[in-house]
Amino acid sequence: MDIHLECLPCFVKQTLSVLNMVNADDSTREHIMRDVLAELSIINFNQPPPEQAQKIHAMIRDLCGNADPYAVQKHADMELALELYALVEPEVNNAPNPFYAGLQMAIAGNSLDHGVYHDLSYADARAFLEQGLHTEIKGDLEQFRTRIERAETILFLGDNAGEIVFDRFLLRQMQHKEVTYAVRGSAIINDALLSDAREAGIDKLVNNLINNGDNAPGTVLHRCSSEFRRIFDAADLIIAKGQGNYETLSENPANIFFLLKAKCPVVARHIGCDLGNALLHRRS
Amino acid sequence: MDIHLECLPCFVKQTLSVLNMVNADDSTREHIMRDVLAELSIINFNQPPPEQAQKIHAMIRDLCGNADPYAVQKHADMELALELYALVEPEVNNAPNPFYAGLQMAIAGNSLDHGVYHDLSYADARAFLEQGLHTEIKGDLEQFRTRIERAETILFLGDNAGEIVFDRFLLRQMQHKEVTYAVRGSAIINDALLSDAREAGIDKLVNNLINNGDNAPGTVLHRCSSEFRRIFDAADLIIAKGQGNYETLSENPANIFFLLKAKCPVVARHIGCDLGNALLHRRS
Repeated sequence: MDIHLECLPCFVKQTLSVLNMVNADDSTREHIMRDVLAELSIINFNQPPPEQAQKIHAMIRDLCGNADPYAVQKHADMELALELYALVEPEVNNAPNPFYAGLQMAIAGNSLDHGVYHDLSYADARAFLEQGLHTEIKGDLEQFRTRIERAETILFLGDNAGEIVFDRFLLRQMQHKEVTYAVRGSAIINDALLSDAREAGIDKLVNNLINNGDNAPGTVLHRCSSEFRRIFDAADLIIAKGQGNYETLSENPANIFFLLKAKCPVVARHIGCDLGNALLHRRS
Repeated sequence: MDIHLECLPCFVKQTLSVLNMVNADDSTREHIMRDVLAELSIINFNQPPPEQAQKIHAMIRDLCGNADPYAVQKHADMELALELYALVEPEVNNAPNPFYAGLQMAIAGNSLDHGVYHDLSYADARAFLEQGLHTEIKGDLEQFRTRIERAETILFLGDNAGEIVFDRFLLRQMQHKEVTYAVRGSAIINDALLSDAREAGIDKLVNNLINNGDNAPGTVLHRCSSEFRRIFDAADLIIAKGQGNYETLSENPANIFFLLKAKCPVVARHIGCDLGNALLHRRS
Protein backbone atom coordinates (compact mmCIF):
# COMPACT_ATOMS: atom_id res chain seq x y z
CA MET A 1 0.00 0.00 0.00
CA ASP A 2 1.48 3.32 -1.06
CA ILE A 3 1.73 6.58 0.83
CA HIS A 4 -1.25 8.91 0.38
CA LEU A 5 -1.41 12.68 0.78
CA GLU A 6 -3.38 12.06 3.98
CA CYS A 7 -0.32 10.35 5.51
CA LEU A 8 1.62 13.62 5.53
CA PRO A 9 -0.08 15.42 8.43
CA CYS A 10 0.16 12.13 10.29
CA PHE A 11 3.95 11.93 9.79
CA VAL A 12 4.26 15.49 11.12
CA LYS A 13 1.98 14.72 14.07
CA GLN A 14 4.04 11.60 14.80
CA THR A 15 7.19 13.71 14.80
CA LEU A 16 5.66 16.15 17.26
CA SER A 17 4.55 13.25 19.42
CA VAL A 18 8.10 11.83 19.64
CA LEU A 19 9.53 15.28 20.31
CA ASN A 20 7.22 15.53 23.30
CA MET A 21 8.69 12.28 24.67
CA VAL A 22 12.37 13.08 24.39
CA ASN A 23 14.46 15.26 26.58
CA ALA A 24 15.58 17.80 23.97
CA ASP A 25 15.84 21.58 24.09
CA ASP A 26 13.59 23.80 21.99
CA SER A 27 16.26 24.50 19.40
CA THR A 28 16.89 20.76 18.84
CA ARG A 29 13.16 20.10 18.54
CA GLU A 30 12.82 22.92 16.01
CA HIS A 31 15.81 21.62 14.06
CA ILE A 32 14.37 18.08 13.93
CA MET A 33 10.95 19.32 12.88
CA ARG A 34 12.50 21.37 10.05
CA ASP A 35 14.53 18.36 8.87
CA VAL A 36 11.47 16.11 8.87
CA LEU A 37 9.43 18.68 6.92
CA ALA A 38 12.23 19.07 4.37
CA GLU A 39 12.45 15.27 4.03
CA LEU A 40 8.66 15.06 3.56
CA SER A 41 8.73 17.78 0.90
CA ILE A 42 10.71 15.39 -1.33
CA ILE A 43 8.87 12.24 -0.23
CA ASN A 44 8.56 9.26 -2.57
CA PHE A 45 4.87 8.38 -2.57
CA ASN A 46 5.55 4.98 -4.17
CA GLN A 47 6.47 3.20 -0.96
CA PRO A 48 4.47 1.94 1.98
CA PRO A 49 4.11 4.46 4.84
CA PRO A 50 6.25 2.37 7.26
CA GLU A 51 9.30 2.73 4.99
CA GLN A 52 9.04 6.50 5.25
CA ALA A 53 8.28 6.34 8.98
CA GLN A 54 11.43 4.26 9.42
CA LYS A 55 13.53 7.03 7.86
CA ILE A 56 11.85 9.78 9.89
CA HIS A 57 12.28 7.97 13.19
CA ALA A 58 15.93 7.18 12.40
CA MET A 59 16.50 10.90 11.80
CA ILE A 60 14.78 11.80 15.06
CA ARG A 61 16.71 9.21 17.10
CA ASP A 62 20.01 10.39 15.59
CA LEU A 63 19.34 14.10 16.01
CA CYS A 64 18.19 13.87 19.60
CA GLY A 65 20.67 11.15 20.55
CA ASN A 66 18.02 8.85 21.99
CA ALA A 67 18.12 5.25 20.78
CA ASP A 68 14.58 4.41 21.94
CA PRO A 69 12.33 7.43 22.61
CA TYR A 70 9.30 5.20 23.26
CA ALA A 71 11.02 3.06 25.92
CA VAL A 72 9.00 4.49 28.82
CA GLN A 73 5.75 4.23 26.87
CA LYS A 74 6.48 0.63 25.90
CA HIS A 75 7.17 -0.26 29.50
CA ALA A 76 3.86 1.29 30.59
CA ASP A 77 1.98 -0.54 27.84
CA MET A 78 3.55 -3.86 28.80
CA GLU A 79 2.49 -3.32 32.41
CA LEU A 80 -1.06 -2.40 31.43
CA ALA A 81 -1.30 -5.37 29.08
CA LEU A 82 0.02 -7.89 31.60
CA GLU A 83 -2.40 -6.59 34.22
CA LEU A 84 -5.40 -6.74 31.89
CA TYR A 85 -4.35 -10.10 30.47
CA ALA A 86 -4.57 -11.61 33.96
CA LEU A 87 -8.02 -10.09 34.42
CA VAL A 88 -9.41 -11.19 31.06
CA GLU A 89 -7.81 -14.66 30.83
CA PRO A 90 -10.54 -16.53 32.77
CA GLU A 91 -13.21 -14.77 30.71
CA VAL A 92 -11.57 -15.85 27.44
CA ASN A 93 -11.05 -19.43 28.67
CA ASN A 94 -14.68 -19.75 29.78
CA ALA A 95 -16.14 -18.04 26.70
CA PRO A 96 -18.52 -20.14 24.56
CA ASN A 97 -15.92 -19.84 21.79
CA PRO A 98 -12.46 -19.34 23.33
CA PHE A 99 -10.83 -19.18 19.86
CA TYR A 100 -13.04 -16.24 18.88
CA ALA A 101 -12.61 -14.54 22.27
CA GLY A 102 -8.82 -14.90 22.05
CA LEU A 103 -8.85 -13.42 18.57
CA GLN A 104 -10.98 -10.52 19.81
CA MET A 105 -8.38 -9.73 22.46
CA ALA A 106 -5.47 -10.15 20.00
CA ILE A 107 -7.11 -7.48 17.81
CA ALA A 108 -8.09 -5.27 20.76
CA GLY A 109 -4.39 -5.32 21.74
CA ASN A 110 -3.64 -3.72 18.39
CA SER A 111 -5.12 -0.49 19.79
CA LEU A 112 -1.85 0.02 21.70
CA ASP A 113 -0.37 1.79 18.70
CA HIS A 114 1.33 5.10 19.43
CA GLY A 115 2.31 5.47 15.78
CA VAL A 116 -1.35 6.06 14.89
CA TYR A 117 -2.89 7.16 18.18
CA HIS A 118 -0.42 9.96 18.87
CA ASP A 119 -1.97 11.00 22.16
CA LEU A 120 -3.24 7.66 23.43
CA SER A 121 -3.79 8.03 27.17
CA TYR A 122 -3.69 5.23 29.73
CA ALA A 123 -7.46 5.57 30.20
CA ASP A 124 -8.14 5.32 26.45
CA ALA A 125 -5.80 2.34 26.07
CA ARG A 126 -7.47 0.57 28.96
CA ALA A 127 -10.94 1.30 27.57
CA PHE A 128 -9.97 -0.06 24.12
CA LEU A 129 -8.75 -3.30 25.70
CA GLU A 130 -11.77 -3.62 27.95
CA GLN A 131 -14.06 -3.29 24.92
CA GLY A 132 -12.22 -6.15 23.18
CA LEU A 133 -14.62 -8.95 24.09
CA HIS A 134 -17.59 -6.83 23.05
CA THR A 135 -16.24 -6.02 19.58
CA GLU A 136 -17.32 -8.06 16.58
CA ILE A 137 -14.58 -9.29 14.25
CA LYS A 138 -15.16 -8.75 10.52
CA GLY A 139 -13.75 -11.64 8.49
CA ASP A 140 -14.01 -15.31 7.64
CA LEU A 141 -13.27 -16.99 10.98
CA GLU A 142 -13.96 -20.49 9.71
CA GLN A 143 -11.56 -20.15 6.78
CA PHE A 144 -8.89 -18.86 9.18
CA ARG A 145 -9.43 -21.77 11.56
CA THR A 146 -9.24 -24.28 8.71
CA ARG A 147 -6.03 -22.72 7.38
CA ILE A 148 -4.44 -22.93 10.82
CA GLU A 149 -5.42 -26.61 11.06
CA ARG A 150 -4.03 -27.36 7.60
CA ALA A 151 -0.74 -25.53 8.17
CA GLU A 152 2.35 -27.23 9.52
CA THR A 153 4.54 -24.15 9.78
CA ILE A 154 3.15 -20.81 10.87
CA LEU A 155 4.94 -17.45 10.96
CA PHE A 156 3.38 -14.95 13.36
CA LEU A 157 4.40 -11.32 12.79
CA GLY A 158 4.01 -9.42 16.05
CA ASP A 159 3.37 -5.72 16.27
CA ASN A 160 3.47 -3.53 19.36
CA ALA A 161 4.75 -3.78 22.92
CA GLY A 162 1.77 -4.51 25.16
CA GLU A 163 -0.27 -5.80 22.25
CA ILE A 164 1.88 -8.94 21.99
CA VAL A 165 0.73 -10.10 25.45
CA PHE A 166 -2.73 -10.70 23.98
CA ASP A 167 -1.27 -12.76 21.11
CA ARG A 168 -0.77 -15.50 23.71
CA PHE A 169 -4.43 -16.51 23.40
CA LEU A 170 -4.03 -17.30 19.73
CA LEU A 171 -0.58 -18.87 20.11
CA ARG A 172 -1.99 -21.28 22.70
CA GLN A 173 -4.41 -22.56 20.05
CA MET A 174 -1.49 -23.34 17.74
CA GLN A 175 0.82 -25.18 20.10
CA HIS A 176 0.66 -28.38 18.05
CA LYS A 177 2.13 -26.45 15.07
CA GLU A 178 5.65 -25.32 14.21
CA VAL A 179 5.30 -21.63 15.06
CA THR A 180 7.85 -18.85 14.61
CA TYR A 181 7.06 -15.51 16.23
CA ALA A 182 8.92 -12.52 14.77
CA VAL A 183 9.41 -9.01 16.16
CA ARG A 184 11.32 -5.99 14.80
CA GLY A 185 15.09 -6.00 14.77
CA SER A 186 15.57 -2.84 16.81
CA ALA A 187 13.68 0.07 18.35
CA ILE A 188 11.03 1.75 16.19
CA ILE A 189 8.05 3.65 17.61
CA ASN A 190 6.44 1.39 20.24
CA ASP A 191 6.89 -1.83 18.27
CA ALA A 192 7.75 -4.93 20.29
CA LEU A 193 11.34 -6.21 20.43
CA LEU A 194 12.72 -9.55 21.63
CA SER A 195 12.86 -8.37 25.24
CA ASP A 196 9.17 -7.39 25.14
CA ALA A 197 8.25 -10.75 23.60
CA ARG A 198 10.11 -12.59 26.37
CA GLU A 199 8.47 -10.42 29.04
CA ALA A 200 5.11 -11.28 27.46
CA GLY A 201 5.96 -14.99 27.71
CA ILE A 202 5.84 -15.50 23.94
CA ASP A 203 9.05 -17.57 23.94
CA LYS A 204 7.33 -20.26 26.05
CA LEU A 205 4.51 -20.69 23.53
CA VAL A 206 6.38 -20.91 20.21
CA ASN A 207 9.15 -23.01 18.69
CA ASN A 208 11.13 -20.06 17.52
CA LEU A 209 11.24 -16.44 18.62
CA ILE A 210 13.23 -14.23 16.24
CA ASN A 211 13.67 -10.66 15.17
CA ASN A 212 13.30 -9.77 11.50
CA GLY A 213 16.63 -7.96 11.22
CA ASP A 214 15.11 -4.60 10.31
CA ASN A 215 13.38 -1.78 12.13
CA ALA A 216 10.67 -0.57 9.80
CA PRO A 217 7.36 -0.37 11.71
CA GLY A 218 6.08 -3.11 9.41
CA THR A 219 7.70 -5.86 7.34
CA VAL A 220 9.78 -4.49 4.46
CA LEU A 221 10.98 -7.86 3.18
CA HIS A 222 13.94 -6.69 1.13
CA ARG A 223 15.40 -5.10 4.25
CA CYS A 224 14.83 -8.09 6.54
CA SER A 225 17.48 -10.69 7.39
CA SER A 226 17.95 -13.70 5.13
CA GLU A 227 16.98 -15.99 8.04
CA PHE A 228 13.68 -14.12 8.39
CA ARG A 229 13.03 -14.20 4.65
CA ARG A 230 13.74 -17.95 4.53
CA ILE A 231 11.15 -18.55 7.25
CA PHE A 232 8.71 -16.16 5.55
CA ASP A 233 9.04 -17.99 2.21
CA ALA A 234 8.72 -21.43 3.80
CA ALA A 235 5.74 -20.77 6.06
CA ASP A 236 2.44 -22.47 5.16
CA LEU A 237 0.58 -19.65 6.85
CA ILE A 238 1.51 -16.14 7.96
CA ILE A 239 -0.43 -14.26 10.59
CA ALA A 240 0.41 -10.55 10.48
CA LYS A 241 -0.66 -8.18 13.23
CA GLY A 242 -1.38 -4.48 12.81
CA GLN A 243 -1.51 -1.73 10.23
CA GLY A 244 2.26 -1.55 9.64
CA ASN A 245 2.44 -5.20 8.60
CA TYR A 246 -0.66 -4.71 6.44
CA GLU A 247 0.72 -1.61 4.74
CA THR A 248 3.99 -3.36 3.87
CA LEU A 249 2.59 -6.79 2.92
CA SER A 250 -0.84 -5.99 1.45
CA GLU A 251 0.35 -6.78 -2.09
CA ASN A 252 2.39 -9.85 -1.12
CA PRO A 253 0.99 -13.06 -2.66
CA ALA A 254 1.85 -15.25 0.35
CA ASN A 255 -0.85 -16.93 2.43
CA ILE A 256 -1.26 -14.06 4.89
CA PHE A 257 -4.07 -13.36 7.32
CA PHE A 258 -3.96 -9.84 8.66
CA LEU A 259 -5.29 -9.24 12.16
CA LEU A 260 -5.75 -5.59 12.95
CA LYS A 261 -7.86 -2.75 14.09
CA ALA A 262 -8.41 -0.31 11.20
CA LYS A 263 -7.20 2.84 12.95
CA CYS A 264 -6.68 5.29 10.11
CA PRO A 265 -8.92 6.28 7.20
CA VAL A 266 -6.28 5.49 4.56
CA VAL A 267 -5.91 1.88 5.70
CA ALA A 268 -9.67 1.47 6.22
CA ARG A 269 -10.32 2.68 2.67
CA HIS A 270 -7.61 0.41 1.24
CA ILE A 271 -9.16 -2.61 2.96
CA GLY A 272 -12.71 -1.48 2.25
CA CYS A 273 -13.94 -1.40 5.85
CA ASP A 274 -15.09 1.18 8.37
CA LEU A 275 -12.70 3.09 10.60
CA GLY A 276 -12.34 1.28 13.91
CA ASN A 277 -13.31 -2.16 12.60
CA ALA A 278 -11.68 -5.22 14.17
CA LEU A 279 -10.52 -7.22 11.18
CA LEU A 280 -9.41 -10.67 10.15
CA HIS A 281 -8.45 -9.83 6.58
CA ARG A 282 -7.10 -11.91 3.73
CA ARG A 283 -6.02 -10.49 0.35
CA SER A 284 -8.78 -11.42 -2.10
CA MET B 1 1.28 35.00 19.88
CA ASP B 2 4.05 33.17 18.07
CA ILE B 3 3.94 29.94 16.10
CA HIS B 4 4.53 26.80 18.15
CA LEU B 5 5.81 23.42 16.99
CA GLU B 6 2.27 22.11 17.50
CA CYS B 7 1.03 24.47 14.78
CA LEU B 8 2.96 22.55 12.12
CA PRO B 9 0.82 19.40 11.83
CA CYS B 10 -2.16 21.76 11.83
CA PHE B 11 -0.81 23.73 8.84
CA VAL B 12 -0.29 20.47 6.95
CA LYS B 13 -3.77 19.22 7.88
CA GLN B 14 -5.22 22.56 6.76
CA THR B 15 -3.45 22.17 3.42
CA LEU B 16 -4.90 18.69 2.98
CA SER B 17 -8.32 20.00 3.88
CA VAL B 18 -8.19 22.72 1.17
CA LEU B 19 -6.86 20.23 -1.37
CA ASN B 20 -9.94 18.11 -0.71
CA MET B 21 -12.15 21.09 -1.58
CA VAL B 22 -10.56 22.14 -4.86
CA ASN B 23 -10.93 20.55 -8.22
CA ALA B 24 -7.26 19.67 -8.85
CA ASP B 25 -5.64 16.55 -10.25
CA ASP B 26 -3.45 14.30 -8.11
CA SER B 27 -0.22 15.67 -9.51
CA THR B 28 -1.22 19.29 -8.70
CA ARG B 29 -2.24 18.28 -5.18
CA GLU B 30 1.07 16.51 -4.66
CA HIS B 31 2.97 19.50 -6.01
CA ILE B 32 1.14 21.90 -3.69
CA MET B 33 1.69 19.67 -0.66
CA ARG B 34 5.42 19.44 -1.42
CA ASP B 35 5.65 23.24 -1.77
CA VAL B 36 3.83 23.80 1.53
CA LEU B 37 6.10 21.30 3.33
CA ALA B 38 9.21 22.96 1.89
CA GLU B 39 7.87 26.37 2.98
CA LEU B 40 7.17 25.03 6.49
CA SER B 41 10.67 23.55 6.74
CA ILE B 42 12.05 27.11 6.68
CA ILE B 43 9.24 28.62 8.73
CA ASN B 44 9.84 31.70 10.87
CA PHE B 45 8.47 30.84 14.30
CA ASN B 46 8.52 34.49 15.40
CA GLN B 47 5.24 35.45 13.80
CA PRO B 48 1.62 34.75 14.66
CA PRO B 49 0.18 31.60 13.02
CA PRO B 50 -2.24 33.60 10.80
CA GLU B 51 0.68 35.32 9.01
CA GLN B 52 2.05 31.92 8.01
CA ALA B 53 -1.42 30.62 7.15
CA GLN B 54 -1.89 33.65 4.88
CA LYS B 55 1.25 32.67 2.89
CA ILE B 56 0.26 29.01 2.67
CA HIS B 57 -3.25 29.74 1.46
CA ALA B 58 -1.96 32.27 -1.10
CA MET B 59 0.36 29.55 -2.47
CA ILE B 60 -2.50 27.06 -2.63
CA ARG B 61 -4.87 29.49 -4.35
CA ASP B 62 -2.19 30.40 -6.90
CA LEU B 63 -1.08 26.84 -7.62
CA CYS B 64 -4.58 25.46 -8.07
CA GLY B 65 -5.93 28.56 -9.80
CA ASN B 66 -8.86 28.92 -7.41
CA ALA B 67 -9.41 32.38 -5.94
CA ASP B 68 -11.70 31.17 -3.14
CA PRO B 69 -11.55 27.43 -2.38
CA TYR B 70 -13.90 27.78 0.60
CA ALA B 71 -16.67 29.56 -1.35
CA VAL B 72 -19.06 26.59 -1.25
CA GLN B 73 -18.36 25.96 2.43
CA LYS B 74 -18.92 29.62 3.28
CA HIS B 75 -22.22 29.61 1.44
CA ALA B 76 -23.35 26.51 3.35
CA ASP B 77 -22.30 28.05 6.68
CA MET B 78 -24.18 31.27 5.92
CA GLU B 79 -27.32 29.26 5.13
CA LEU B 80 -27.01 27.21 8.32
CA ALA B 81 -26.35 30.32 10.41
CA LEU B 82 -29.29 32.28 8.97
CA GLU B 83 -31.61 29.32 9.55
CA LEU B 84 -30.45 28.83 13.15
CA TYR B 85 -30.46 32.56 13.86
CA ALA B 86 -34.17 32.70 13.03
CA LEU B 87 -34.82 29.75 15.34
CA VAL B 88 -32.79 31.06 18.27
CA GLU B 89 -33.70 34.76 18.02
CA PRO B 90 -36.91 34.56 20.11
CA GLU B 91 -35.09 32.53 22.74
CA VAL B 92 -32.32 35.13 23.03
CA ASN B 93 -34.83 38.02 23.15
CA ASN B 94 -36.87 36.34 25.87
CA ALA B 95 -33.88 35.18 27.90
CA PRO B 96 -33.60 36.53 31.48
CA ASN B 97 -30.40 38.26 30.33
CA PRO B 98 -30.58 38.92 26.56
CA PHE B 99 -27.10 40.54 26.58
CA TYR B 100 -25.55 37.36 27.99
CA ALA B 101 -27.57 35.10 25.69
CA GLY B 102 -26.55 37.14 22.65
CA LEU B 103 -22.93 36.90 23.70
CA GLN B 104 -23.28 33.15 24.12
CA MET B 105 -24.50 32.85 20.54
CA ALA B 106 -21.80 35.22 19.22
CA ILE B 107 -19.19 32.90 20.75
CA ALA B 108 -20.98 29.71 19.68
CA GLY B 109 -20.89 31.09 16.13
CA ASN B 110 -17.10 31.07 16.39
CA SER B 111 -17.27 27.27 16.12
CA LEU B 112 -17.82 27.72 12.37
CA ASP B 113 -14.06 27.76 11.82
CA HIS B 114 -12.78 25.49 9.07
CA GLY B 115 -9.22 26.68 9.63
CA VAL B 116 -9.17 24.84 12.98
CA TYR B 117 -11.93 22.26 12.59
CA HIS B 118 -10.63 20.75 9.35
CA ASP B 119 -13.41 18.22 8.97
CA LEU B 120 -16.29 20.13 10.53
CA SER B 121 -19.49 18.44 9.34
CA TYR B 122 -22.88 20.11 9.01
CA ALA B 123 -24.14 18.01 11.93
CA ASP B 124 -21.23 19.03 14.16
CA ALA B 125 -21.58 22.70 13.21
CA ARG B 126 -25.29 22.61 13.96
CA ALA B 127 -24.70 20.86 17.29
CA PHE B 128 -22.09 23.47 18.32
CA LEU B 129 -24.53 26.29 17.57
CA GLU B 130 -27.42 24.56 19.31
CA GLN B 131 -25.29 24.16 22.45
CA GLY B 132 -24.56 27.91 22.45
CA LEU B 133 -27.22 28.95 24.97
CA HIS B 134 -26.18 26.13 27.31
CA THR B 135 -22.49 27.11 27.37
CA GLU B 136 -21.11 29.23 30.17
CA ILE B 137 -18.92 32.18 29.17
CA LYS B 138 -15.66 32.58 31.09
CA GLY B 139 -14.82 36.24 31.58
CA ASP B 140 -15.79 39.49 33.26
CA LEU B 141 -19.19 40.26 31.74
CA GLU B 142 -19.83 43.28 33.89
CA GLN B 143 -16.51 44.91 32.97
CA PHE B 144 -17.30 44.30 29.28
CA ARG B 145 -20.76 45.81 29.63
CA THR B 146 -19.39 48.86 31.42
CA ARG B 147 -16.70 49.36 28.76
CA ILE B 148 -19.31 49.22 26.02
CA GLU B 149 -21.41 51.81 27.83
CA ARG B 150 -18.41 54.08 28.32
CA ALA B 151 -17.20 53.83 24.71
CA GLU B 152 -18.29 56.24 22.03
CA THR B 153 -16.58 54.53 19.11
CA ILE B 154 -16.39 50.76 18.86
CA LEU B 155 -14.52 48.68 16.28
CA PHE B 156 -15.88 45.15 15.87
CA LEU B 157 -13.50 42.71 14.13
CA GLY B 158 -15.57 39.96 12.54
CA ASP B 159 -14.28 36.49 11.89
CA ASN B 160 -15.95 33.76 9.85
CA ALA B 161 -18.78 33.48 7.35
CA GLY B 162 -21.80 32.10 9.16
CA GLU B 163 -20.43 33.18 12.52
CA ILE B 164 -21.03 36.86 11.72
CA VAL B 165 -24.79 36.30 11.60
CA PHE B 166 -24.72 35.71 15.36
CA ASP B 167 -22.79 38.96 15.94
CA ARG B 168 -26.10 40.71 15.25
CA PHE B 169 -27.24 40.04 18.82
CA LEU B 170 -24.34 42.00 20.24
CA LEU B 171 -24.46 44.73 17.59
CA ARG B 172 -28.11 45.36 18.43
CA GLN B 173 -27.04 46.16 22.00
CA MET B 174 -24.64 48.79 20.69
CA GLN B 175 -26.87 50.67 18.27
CA HIS B 176 -26.56 53.91 20.22
CA LYS B 177 -22.77 53.82 19.65
CA GLU B 178 -20.59 54.68 16.66
CA VAL B 179 -19.78 51.17 15.50
CA THR B 180 -17.48 50.06 12.68
CA TYR B 181 -17.61 46.40 11.68
CA ALA B 182 -14.53 45.13 9.79
CA VAL B 183 -14.06 41.97 7.74
CA ARG B 184 -11.05 40.67 5.79
CA GLY B 185 -10.01 42.36 2.55
CA SER B 186 -10.25 39.28 0.34
CA ALA B 187 -10.78 35.52 0.45
CA ILE B 188 -8.90 33.59 3.13
CA ILE B 189 -10.08 30.24 4.52
CA ASN B 190 -13.75 30.67 5.47
CA ASP B 191 -13.37 34.16 6.87
CA ALA B 192 -16.22 36.57 6.22
CA LEU B 193 -15.97 39.18 3.46
CA LEU B 194 -18.09 42.28 2.78
CA SER B 195 -20.64 40.26 0.79
CA ASP B 196 -21.10 37.84 3.70
CA ALA B 197 -21.50 40.72 6.13
CA ARG B 198 -24.19 42.26 3.93
CA GLU B 199 -25.96 38.91 3.56
CA ALA B 200 -25.88 38.63 7.36
CA GLY B 201 -27.50 42.07 7.65
CA ILE B 202 -24.53 43.58 9.49
CA ASP B 203 -24.61 46.74 7.34
CA LYS B 204 -28.05 47.63 8.74
CA LEU B 205 -26.82 47.51 12.34
CA VAL B 206 -23.59 49.49 12.20
CA ASN B 207 -22.47 52.94 11.09
CA ASN B 208 -19.64 51.70 9.00
CA LEU B 209 -18.96 48.33 7.36
CA ILE B 210 -15.42 48.06 6.00
CA ASN B 211 -12.80 45.55 5.02
CA ASN B 212 -9.35 45.72 6.60
CA GLY B 213 -7.44 45.73 3.31
CA ASP B 214 -5.59 42.50 4.01
CA ASN B 215 -6.36 38.80 3.89
CA ALA B 216 -4.53 37.26 6.82
CA PRO B 217 -6.98 35.09 8.79
CA GLY B 218 -6.56 37.52 11.66
CA THR B 219 -5.55 41.18 11.96
CA VAL B 220 -1.93 41.81 10.97
CA LEU B 221 -1.99 45.54 11.51
CA HIS B 222 1.07 46.50 9.48
CA ARG B 223 -0.52 44.84 6.44
CA CYS B 224 -3.95 46.46 6.87
CA SER B 225 -5.13 49.57 5.02
CA SER B 226 -4.41 53.00 6.45
CA GLU B 227 -8.17 53.61 6.73
CA PHE B 228 -8.52 50.50 8.87
CA ARG B 229 -5.53 51.40 11.02
CA ARG B 230 -6.88 54.88 11.56
CA ILE B 231 -10.17 53.47 12.84
CA PHE B 232 -8.30 50.88 14.94
CA ASP B 233 -6.17 53.55 16.59
CA ALA B 234 -9.12 55.86 17.22
CA ALA B 235 -11.56 53.28 18.64
CA ASP B 236 -12.43 53.55 22.34
CA LEU B 237 -13.12 49.83 22.40
CA ILE B 238 -12.26 46.96 20.08
CA ILE B 239 -14.21 43.70 20.09
CA ALA B 240 -12.24 40.98 18.30
CA LYS B 241 -13.85 37.69 17.36
CA GLY B 242 -12.05 34.38 17.05
CA GLN B 243 -8.65 32.76 17.42
CA GLY B 244 -7.08 34.45 14.37
CA ASN B 245 -7.75 37.92 15.75
CA TYR B 246 -6.50 36.79 19.17
CA GLU B 247 -3.31 35.28 17.76
CA THR B 248 -2.45 38.45 15.86
CA LEU B 249 -3.55 41.02 18.48
CA SER B 250 -2.83 39.28 21.79
CA GLU B 251 0.18 41.54 22.50
CA ASN B 252 -1.47 44.74 21.27
CA PRO B 253 -1.95 47.29 24.07
CA ALA B 254 -5.26 48.62 22.71
CA ASN B 255 -8.50 48.23 24.66
CA ILE B 256 -9.47 44.89 23.11
CA PHE B 257 -11.99 42.33 24.30
CA PHE B 258 -11.55 38.98 22.59
CA LEU B 259 -14.65 36.86 22.08
CA LEU B 260 -13.82 33.33 21.05
CA LYS B 261 -14.11 29.65 21.54
CA ALA B 262 -10.70 28.21 22.48
CA LYS B 263 -10.50 25.56 19.77
CA CYS B 264 -6.85 24.58 19.78
CA PRO B 265 -4.51 23.61 22.63
CA VAL B 266 -1.89 26.23 21.72
CA VAL B 267 -4.36 29.11 22.00
CA ALA B 268 -5.99 27.64 25.13
CA ARG B 269 -2.58 27.37 26.80
CA HIS B 270 -1.64 30.92 25.76
CA ILE B 271 -4.85 32.27 27.27
CA GLY B 272 -4.70 29.95 30.28
CA CYS B 273 -8.07 28.29 29.80
CA ASP B 274 -9.41 24.84 28.95
CA LEU B 275 -9.83 23.62 25.39
CA GLY B 276 -13.38 24.33 24.23
CA ASN B 277 -14.02 27.19 26.65
CA ALA B 278 -16.29 30.04 25.50
CA LEU B 279 -14.31 33.15 26.37
CA LEU B 280 -14.64 36.85 26.87
CA HIS B 281 -10.96 37.64 27.31
CA ARG B 282 -9.07 40.82 27.98
CA ARG B 283 -5.27 41.12 28.04
CA SER B 284 -4.29 41.40 31.69
